[in-house]
Amino acid sequence: MENKKAMSVKIPVGILGATGAVGQKFIKLLEDHPWFEITEVAASERTSGKLYGDAASWKQVTPIPAAIHNLEVKPCTPELKCRVVFSGLDANVAGPIEEDFARAGYIVLSNSKNHRLDEDVPLVIPEVNPDHLGLIPVQRQNRQSKGYIVTNSNCTTMFLAMALGPIHKAFKVEKVFMVSMQAVSGAGYPGVASLDILGNVIPYIGGEEEKVEIETRKILGTFNGKTIDLAEFPVSAQCNRVAVEDGHTESVSIKLAKKTTAAEIASLLENYIGVPQKLRLPSAPEKPYLVMEAQDRPQPRFDVNRHKGMATCVGRIRPCSIFDFKLTLMGHNTVRGAAGASILNAELLKAQGLLE
Amino acid sequence: MENKKAMSVKIPVGILGATGAVGQKFIKLLEDHPWFEITEVAASERTSGKLYGDAASWKQVTPIPAAIHNLEVKPCTPELKCRVVFSGLDANVAGPIEEDFARAGYIVLSNSKNHRLDEDVPLVIPEVNPDHLGLIPVQRQNRQSKGYIVTNSNCTTMFLAMALGPIHKAFKVEKVFMVSMQAVSGAGYPGVASLDILGNVIPYIGGEEEKVEIETRKILGTFNGKTIDLAEFPVSAQCNRVAVEDGHTESVSIKLAKKTTAAEIASLLENYIGVPQKLRLPSAPEKPYLVMEAQDRPQPRFDVNRHKGMATCVGRIRPCSIFDFKLTLMGHNTVRGAAGASILNAELLKAQGLLE
Amino acid sequence: MENKKAMSVKIPVGILGATGAVGQKFIKLLEDHPWFEITEVAASERTSGKLYGDAASWKQVTPIPAAIHNLEVKPCTPELKCRVVFSGLDANVAGPIEEDFARAGYIVLSNSKNHRLDEDVPLVIPEVNPDHLGLIPVQRQNRQSKGYIVTNSNCTTMFLAMALGPIHKAFKVEKVFMVSMQAVSGAGYPGVASLDILGNVIPYIGGEEEKVEIETRKILGTFNGKTIDLAEFPVSAQCNRVAVEDGHTESVSIKLAKKTTAAEIASLLENYIGVPQKLRLPSAPEKPYLVMEAQDRPQPRFDVNRHKGMATCVGRIRPCSIFDFKLTLMGHNTVRGAAGASILNAELLKAQGLLE
Amino acid sequence: MENKKAMSVKIPVGILGATGAVGQKFIKLLEDHPWFEITEVAASERTSGKLYGDAASWKQVTPIPAAIHNLEVKPCTPELKCRVVFSGLDANVAGPIEEDFARAGYIVLSNSKNHRLDEDVPLVIPEVNPDHLGLIPVQRQNRQSKGYIVTNSNCTTMFLAMALGPIHKAFKVEKVFMVSMQAVSGAGYPGVASLDILGNVIPYIGGEEEKVEIETRKILGTFNGKTIDLAEFPVSAQCNRVAVEDGHTESVSIKLAKKTTAAEIASLLENYIGVPQKLRLPSAPEKPYLVMEAQDRPQPRFDVNRHKGMATCVGRIRPCSIFDFKLTLMGHNTVRGAAGASILNAELLKAQGLLE
Repeated sequence: MENKKAMSVKIPVGILGATGAVGQKFIKLLEDHPWFEITEVAASERTSGKLYGDAASWKQVTPIPAAIHNLEVKPCTPELKCRVVFSGLDANVAGPIEEDFARAGYIVLSNSKNHRLDEDVPLVIPEVNPDHLGLIPVQRQNRQSKGYIVTNSNCTTMFLAMALGPIHKAFKVEKVFMVSMQAVSGAGYPGVASLDILGNVIPYIGGEEEKVEIETRKILGTFNGKTIDLAEFPVSAQCNRVAVEDGHTESVSIKLAKKTTAAEIASLLENYIGVPQKLRLPSAPEKPYLVMEAQDRPQPRFDVNRHKGMATCVGRIRPCSIFDFKLTLMGHNTVRGAAGASILNAELLKAQGLLE
Repeated sequence: MENKKAMSVKIPVGILGATGAVGQKFIKLLEDHPWFEITEVAASERTSGKLYGDAASWKQVTPIPAAIHNLEVKPCTPELKCRVVFSGLDANVAGPIEEDFARAGYIVLSNSKNHRLDEDVPLVIPEVNPDHLGLIPVQRQNRQSKGYIVTNSNCTTMFLAMALGPIHKAFKVEKVFMVSMQAVSGAGYPGVASLDILGNVIPYIGGEEEKVEIETRKILGTFNGKTIDLAEFPVSAQCNRVAVEDGHTESVSIKLAKKTTAAEIASLLENYIGVPQKLRLPSAPEKPYLVMEAQDRPQPRFDVNRHKGMATCVGRIRPCSIFDFKLTLMGHNTVRGAAGASILNAELLKAQGLLE
Repeated sequence: MENKKAMSVKIPVGILGATGAVGQKFIKLLEDHPWFEITEVAASERTSGKLYGDAASWKQVTPIPAAIHNLEVKPCTPELKCRVVFSGLDANVAGPIEEDFARAGYIVLSNSKNHRLDEDVPLVIPEVNPDHLGLIPVQRQNRQSKGYIVTNSNCTTMFLAMALGPIHKAFKVEKVFMVSMQAVSGAGYPGVASLDILGNVIPYIGGEEEKVEIETRKILGTFNGKTIDLAEFPVSAQCNRVAVEDGHTESVSIKLAKKTTAAEIASLLENYIGVPQKLRLPSAPEKPYLVMEAQDRPQPRFDVNRHKGMATCVGRIRPCSIFDFKLTLMGHNTVRGAAGASILNAELLKAQGLLE
Repeated sequence: MENKKAMSVKIPVGILGATGAVGQKFIKLLEDHPWFEITEVAASERTSGKLYGDAASWKQVTPIPAAIHNLEVKPCTPELKCRVVFSGLDANVAGPIEEDFARAGYIVLSNSKNHRLDEDVPLVIPEVNPDHLGLIPVQRQNRQSKGYIVTNSNCTTMFLAMALGPIHKAFKVEKVFMVSMQAVSGAGYPGVASLDILGNVIPYIGGEEEKVEIETRKILGTFNGKTIDLAEFPVSAQCNRVAVEDGHTESVSIKLAKKTTAAEIASLLENYIGVPQKLRLPSAPEKPYLVMEAQDRPQPRFDVNRHKGMATCVGRIRPCSIFDFKLTLMGHNTVRGAAGASILNAELLKAQGLLE
């Protein structure tokens, strides 16, 4: 009874695209969440009407939470009994569905690419640009709706934009090169064929480089009261797929306007406390950046789950013979880089009274 | 009898470090070589006196050549019955041993790093800087010896320097970023522990970045009659290890002095015929560059053995938002990037009468 | 001209399911075949009418043969200009299509499971049961057709049945346990998802265990003039998928009626010369069994391509504490275990005048 | 102060071979253990005197526990300030060192093979043969020492013997075939070279098959008051290494004296409650057997950490065409199969008053 009462206080939420790879991660990460409780799971027509446990080809290392197993899968139409929805929908359907939900008054936390670059949609990393939530009233007014859409970045963008956040503020970033080595889980399921990746590197991920180059600049851009002025520095990205299950690694070179040292950058990141840390948001990592001293770290296999998979691991900060510094970034692409990012955004909205 | 006579015409050669990973590759690649015949295999004290078949932990996909199986392993001292030696020695011993051999009149084709940067030692890629062999008389005079040392580059440098060769000549390279994803075979045997690389990326390879940054500039430098003037452009390298058996992949960005197009660069490389091709050297690939059109190529698993593993595969030539062009390089790190490179150098020396 | 004439003598053949994984392997293995020349490629409706180079998602490590690149893909109907067809069709369509072709007078070399167990269809390994081709006249009469179907075994069955062949003849097999560790290429393309196999073992392959248990007994059975009496010994199979690209490994235990020794079995296999070897069939391995002495061999990565991928590698023959002997088998699942097996069957047919 | 007092109640323990792979796992698993507290870490001469954090090449996915980081590494001599030691020593040194400790009065929980088969040393799995601890007084008397040695099984034996335990008791096992597919972590660090296992299966693990065949029979044997009568059934084992980080998979066939069904076996295991479960030992899994219904489970990647890595996962129980049943076993080889097993043994000793 005690327990029931506690649960009834939680905010009911729905998952769009609940049977897919990102949807499953939402379900796993929201198990035992102190603020949110999944009451609705929605997916494509093909599975709607089935029980979730029968509909999903579950690929997590823990079992389907008991409370979710027997939920009926609903269609992705704005008739779910909740006000907040997390979207892990495929990009080929996410666009209009998310709009429908927002128009109908839902608050949509989207992990899809479709609306990230919309002028009135916030693309938010709570540690970096929480002020971009200022776009919400703009969006509501533009679209004449009570609901709204908030997005998180592409998984590869995440670790780059997160690392650049404090650096840009302190030293002004002027140019950025980034080459990624991305995990197969980023491609969903079944995603990458084993014959394509065993003993191999695939030097191409469709659309990924473009996303990194533009999203990074929006996230590090400036909210001018009506829209976001993109950060002015160019980003040049090259994206590769490697035989790693979880964890994107990024080799980065940056040029800065102000002089600094590798030690100063390390210290800046190591001691950085962002809004989620100050607000003690439930999914926030204790520290947003895990700065590693060993010269051969971070490594996905050993570090991907550090700080609940919500930190950006940073290593090998060292001088660059062309720009100023080279460094290696690594983070959990389906946690901090996807579902965990949406959930942290929702927690920030809640803490700021924006879920009401 | 006929056969014996034919064989007696071949140039006898020795392998230093014959039991190691590079030594084994020399033995494999020299099987049935039209010009060279291995008559001596030398390795560390520990194995000398044994038969090669007993001494080597053979890790090639074809068996030990019959003619080599029963050769007695000799110590690495300049008493081998041959004039030409290929060195696959570990860097921690290669330095003085190679010098000893050269001083004693041997011609040393070295795959080791130790003498690559010596002022009077050629660091040669036959398609790119065959004229650097002009250092040989300088070296002989400097060191008062009839023998000499010729080196080939580090395996990661190889594909970068090879690709930059024609591009630099045509359009003058000004700056180069390179991030590598390197195969485990580059670390020898046992080399990388499986627990370190399964499902992982290691963002550090000791000394590798420094080698790429300086060797590239020596190879693309200018022979001034006495020494090499380094190419002036800076190279910024970041080196990673990935779970690939053979084949280094490199994501590269280049800035050029002259305007050009991706199509022009592709055409330049595709149609490039170098000295080894003109001389029809036995180990030369038909074409030094394999330019691939598919947007997701080259890939190590599918392309590493194209053109006998002696070509540099080039793909994804496209504009860069900071420099001028981005491209992906890939090649066989233990063939073109190691033993095959030494052999091609020896073939060039022979064709130019420098083995006499 | 000389060349053209030579080619015109070759037997024109067609490939059914030409764009799939097995179809591609047929095309690769038949490049430069001395007796057969591919003149027709056929595949599903979806691709028919396209050029082969455009229709196939080519996944071999050598390029599409020039002669095949521009062939038009035909539908899988018996209107191909050739008399011999190799079938790499999916099991869900192969059954009736192969029957249609045979009825229309074609000779069908099938790699599909559908007709392997038909009473009047030979399931042949040329080294083991070439006499089963005696079913061909039976089949022709039964089905009143001039064409006929000859099948080769499932890829896992192949290495077991091949190894058991001479052993059964010499020592009479009484019981067989087999546990397989199968390569991902056995599942076609895209086949096994990378998220399912990286760092994993999948202890289940649908239908595989049943195939191994029955096909082995048919292959080692006795042709009684009208049909095949199955070999009487039971086979117990357990099949697993592992993160290997090519090469199935099998841990086997066998009980024999007659006493023998591990050395005798090794010698028996090592010295075995089958019909394909006697007839010097073009695709026959020099020796059908590669018996390996090193206690840790065979291994797929190092041995899968020995003897052109057409041998069965045998190692670790040693006493078993329950049955008589334990041993390890390994072979190339898409060469000897699939396309290469069909081709060898066709060569046997040709050598015996059965393609006329 | 409160905390200190709580800690002072814990039993101080030492780790022998603390820097190695098993030693590290002991340290990780004992972090926050309710009963034991590591106060001593001992390793080879080479590292003794160093701080643990400097001496160990730490390969766990969580950092070195703060309390351990600054412990001084001691030599492996019986002068440690604790009475209980866990041994993760290499087999080539474990024998006499463990004896020295026992002679000096220490209680040695050994993960090494050296004393497992000693007549008076218990080889214990708490769910299966807790009564074998009756050997302790025998051992003490034999060896005239207050200390004693208790061992846990080889990692591959563990899952087989655990699964057979209840089955043997209920249905009497008569014969067992087992083929393993073992993770690389079982070979320690650096252990298996990446060049040996990427895309490969190694069909040999030195001494492993012999261990499985005899240890299983000792564990399932009968304590006769003075020694163990081996179980009478023969075990035939074949051991393979595969490219899996953690988790040994085993394909098993069993012959039983009594008739039963797959469903009965599943039910027997699923409902089995052993001594550790009854005693609620801290490291005991809630259920010792995780019986999985999906026909393609268990799988190491998805199931290895179920029930804290302490359960034996069982799947695919089905009829065998030669014996009675085939099934697939899987478990965490360095947790339940090594360090976790020793710890559970120590907990059982404590619960039974044998640590006093």
